[in-house]
Amino acid sequence: MDKDAFDTAITYTAPGEIRLRGYPVEQIMGRVDFGSAVYLLLRGELPDAPIGRLVTAVLVSSLDHGPSAPSVHSARLAASTGAPLNACVAAGVLNINRYHGGAIQDCATALREIVQRCDERSIPLSQAVDDVLGEYRARRFRVAGFGHRLHPVDPRTGRLFALADEAGCCGRYVEACRLVESGLHKQLGKKLPINVDGAIAAVLCELGFDTSLMNAFFIIARVPGLIAQAHEEMQRQRRMRRIVPGAHRYDGPEPRDLPDP
Amino acid sequence: MDKDAFDTAITYTAPGEIRLRGYPVEQIMGRVDFGSAVYLLLRGELPDAPIGRLVTAVLVSSLDHGPSAPSVHSARLAASTGAPLNACVAAGVLNINRYHGGAIQDCATALREIVQRCDERSIPLSQAVDDVLGEYRARRFRVAGFGHRLHPVDPRTGRLFALADEAGCCGRYVEACRLVESGLHKQLGKKLPINVDGAIAAVLCELGFDTSLMNAFFIIARVPGLIAQAHEEMQRQRRMRRIVPGAHRYDGPEPRDLPDP
Amino acid sequence: MDKDAFDTAITYTAPGEIRLRGYPVEQIMGRVDFGSAVYLLLRGELPDAPIGRLVTAVLVSSLDHGPSAPSVHSARLAASTGAPLNACVAAGVLNINRYHGGAIQDCATALREIVQRCDERSIPLSQAVDDVLGEYRARRFRVAGFGHRLHPVDPRTGRLFALADEAGCCGRYVEACRLVESGLHKQLGKKLPINVDGAIAAVLCELGFDTSLMNAFFIIARVPGLIAQAHEEMQRQRRMRRIVPGAHRYDGPEPRDLPDP
Amino acid sequence: MDKDAFDTAITYTAPGEIRLRGYPVEQIMGRVDFGSAVYLLLRGELPDAPIGRLVTAVLVSSLDHGPSAPSVHSARLAASTGAPLNACVAAGVLNINRYHGGAIQDCATALREIVQRCDERSIPLSQAVDDVLGEYRARRFRVAGFGHRLHPVDPRTGRLFALADEAGCCGRYVEACRLVESGLHKQLGKKLPINVDGAIAAVLCELGFDTSLMNAFFIIARVPGLIAQAHEEMQRQRRMRRIVPGAHRYDGPEPRDLPDP
Repeated sequence: MDKDAFDTAITYTAPGEIRLRGYPVEQIMGRVDFGSAVYLLLRGELPDAPIGRLVTAVLVSSLDHGPSAPSVHSARLAASTGAPLNACVAAGVLNINRYHGGAIQDCATALREIVQRCDERSIPLSQAVDDVLGEYRARRFRVAGFGHRLHPVDPRTGRLFALADEAGCCGRYVEACRLVESGLHKQLGKKLPINVDGAIAAVLCELGFDTSLMNAFFIIARVPGLIAQAHEEMQRQRRMRRIVPGAHRYDGPEPRDLPDP
Repeated sequence: MDKDAFDTAITYTAPGEIRLRGYPVEQIMGRVDFGSAVYLLLRGELPDAPIGRLVTAVLVSSLDHGPSAPSVHSARLAASTGAPLNACVAAGVLNINRYHGGAIQDCATALREIVQRCDERSIPLSQAVDDVLGEYRARRFRVAGFGHRLHPVDPRTGRLFALADEAGCCGRYVEACRLVESGLHKQLGKKLPINVDGAIAAVLCELGFDTSLMNAFFIIARVPGLIAQAHEEMQRQRRMRRIVPGAHRYDGPEPRDLPDP
Repeated sequence: MDKDAFDTAITYTAPGEIRLRGYPVEQIMGRVDFGSAVYLLLRGELPDAPIGRLVTAVLVSSLDHGPSAPSVHSARLAASTGAPLNACVAAGVLNINRYHGGAIQDCATALREIVQRCDERSIPLSQAVDDVLGEYRARRFRVAGFGHRLHPVDPRTGRLFALADEAGCCGRYVEACRLVESGLHKQLGKKLPINVDGAIAAVLCELGFDTSLMNAFFIIARVPGLIAQAHEEMQRQRRMRRIVPGAHRYDGPEPRDLPDP
Repeated sequence: MDKDAFDTAITYTAPGEIRLRGYPVEQIMGRVDFGSAVYLLLRGELPDAPIGRLVTAVLVSSLDHGPSAPSVHSARLAASTGAPLNACVAAGVLNINRYHGGAIQDCATALREIVQRCDERSIPLSQAVDDVLGEYRARRFRVAGFGHRLHPVDPRTGRLFALADEAGCCGRYVEACRLVESGLHKQLGKKLPINVDGAIAAVLCELGFDTSLMNAFFIIARVPGLIAQAHEEMQRQRRMRRIVPGAHRYDGPEPRDLPDP
């Protein structure tokens, strides 16, 4: 077996013992919030509490956006054919790619390019933004994470940046993100405000996450949404109906505000 | 399009507006923990804070249990062939079925059968447990959620019940679960302690979740584990290696305790 | 390693040697048609040539039925988000369940129930059909494999039975299938002709396939269709479009007949 | 609905009518072999009969290679957890990526680069091979499709080229493939014979398939193997066993030769 031995730094188990990154799971349960636990799993260390709350907010921001997103549409299709919940989730997750959810990773790549440029050439951040935007334009690329089909202003963006600010995480990546927004306005003559993907990208860059892990947050966040939507399809709709994107009518709870804390 | 219209009570979107079960998502962000948000999505209402924390604890309890679980093994296999993260997650999630994760649902079915029997026949809970255990035995079924390959005592069980107790959620389902444990001891002459799946089943029954949604919690919980494990496979191992279950060696952080709150 | 040893009767490999069910793969290549090779893989023996052709015809019958089938819709959705081909196929295959493709298995279950009834009670087949149809009706079940959303008469049914007849495979299951068709007509007062799923079910019963393997044929058959459709989506459509079932227009080759053999 | 209309050139359906690329499916059934039908679906036209047989041979060559391939291992893992067949197939297919099956596409890319170089620079094919191999080496890339873990000589390669020769399809891509084989021998001082992936790549290049469709053949071919293996796991093994790659023992039919035609 020796030649097949492989190392792992995530979880240690022994009879009566389960440790995630060294901490007993029963200590984590009830004392650590989900965002912090995910951070621990992915990074190896617990974050400060405000960072953990910020990660939770990132996850909460992308839980669901209605039945028309391809991931949700796909989960409902599978449910409609009689698939079990896990297959609905799998079918949904397979739709989280470059053009759905993937803007987080692509935006992070651009932000990192900008900050690196700024450092390497000792130029102001605004200069680096202009340079990189110019190059994207020359290559006929679009910077991902700006503009939204539905939302003139994405309500999640401002909130996420406010929470990042509270957590002391608004550094150069968030600044670069805002400069790209104004740069695009100048370049294109129209507003393409930072959307939730762009905001998440900036925040995860501030937190130091690998670009290769960025889409993971959208996947983790969206799974409960896929489950709620697939389960509703099973409960409320007949099987094998035509599922038309955009044909839904909302009949849930009336608009309401969170109770004061 | 009218004939294709369908109703959904989960998420309302309009330009500049995203409401989950009526609440603006930007209010939920930063104020509601992940367990509560998942509860809201699945049930339609926000839980009391202690219930939300309990749901978070349920999710945290099942984040990961090392590379040998078939869901994780499968996610690592996919990573080893060059799959992107979402495909690793999908492959992993497809392994969450009756024999892996499914004990939650099967145990909940048994617990509900017991409590219903107790009510319908106006017999003591202990009598209902004996009756149902006898019937399972006669049908050569095993009640799921008891005993564990590795853990003589599952460290997550006691902790979850303690948290349920704090949240005021230790009612007849938890009691029934404990009675099944002692009933099995009597019946089989050996200890099969409640494992984490059995404990989760009892707690989710207390919270009133549909049995058909029970495995959802294991799916939601395990996704970050699948991502951490698949990502580690990508980072640390060569592609297309033989992945032998149980051949891993832990080289992560030393055993440590959570800092005092 | 001994305790992990497990037996398999499908494929033997050794340096320079690959045998499927005992036959060298290089002998099978170029001499055995795909239907026969699939039969060999699933059953362990090569079929007679006409049976092999019949299996190929079963597979060909279900290759594709346009973009509105949920499996195809799902594969196109995934393609539209930027998924690689294998993820499109996986998403599509996850839609092959009880209500899409699964009629084959459910119909086979009914046909086997009928033939078994006929044998056990020594009653005529027509009597067994009437009895079983009556029981289905009492349980408010519908026998699967009859009637089609689009086709008043499914053009594949007659052809498949003709090929089964040529192969000498039209026995009691095909007869039972036809008796169910007329029984349903009598019972419901409207025609629900045998559809391709019902015809495949009858033929696979004649060939002696396990009911648990029946949906496998639809899966194998549909994969090339999923690939053709997902690939066309990638080539001809813009990403993240709204994919509305039924909104397609055919612009392929004009109607034409196969050249004479 | 007009704005959602989209064009498709694959399948036309109307009441009582199903046409694949213009041909009635009931004419294709029983008269066209599976390889030709797949070719028709992917390319839009029926191939000559020898080409169809060659495509079938390509598919047959990759049906199965035993339980240790990651796609098969993954399908067996899912089966072991209680997954239905389609989920086992999906999990398996998600393992068909760059490092498993993907050699076909990567080898085709190299072969096309070589032939294009030869044309553009009007140099002999052998010169183009030397140039491209040199460049790959300089970039520390390995040309995919040569050498095999198990087989010193892959028994499928010679057979596939013989069938391609019979079908009149051994042109410059097959020649380039052979020149790469000898070039690698010279370059590395050891033999890395063309494996089945390399041979398939050369043949599919000869047939003019898009490089983006090459892995499709491996996917189509492997699905019946995944089904046979997952089904065997369900039938013969206990659930949730440790599945160790390479721990299998073959207990199927004795070595045998195909009966004379």
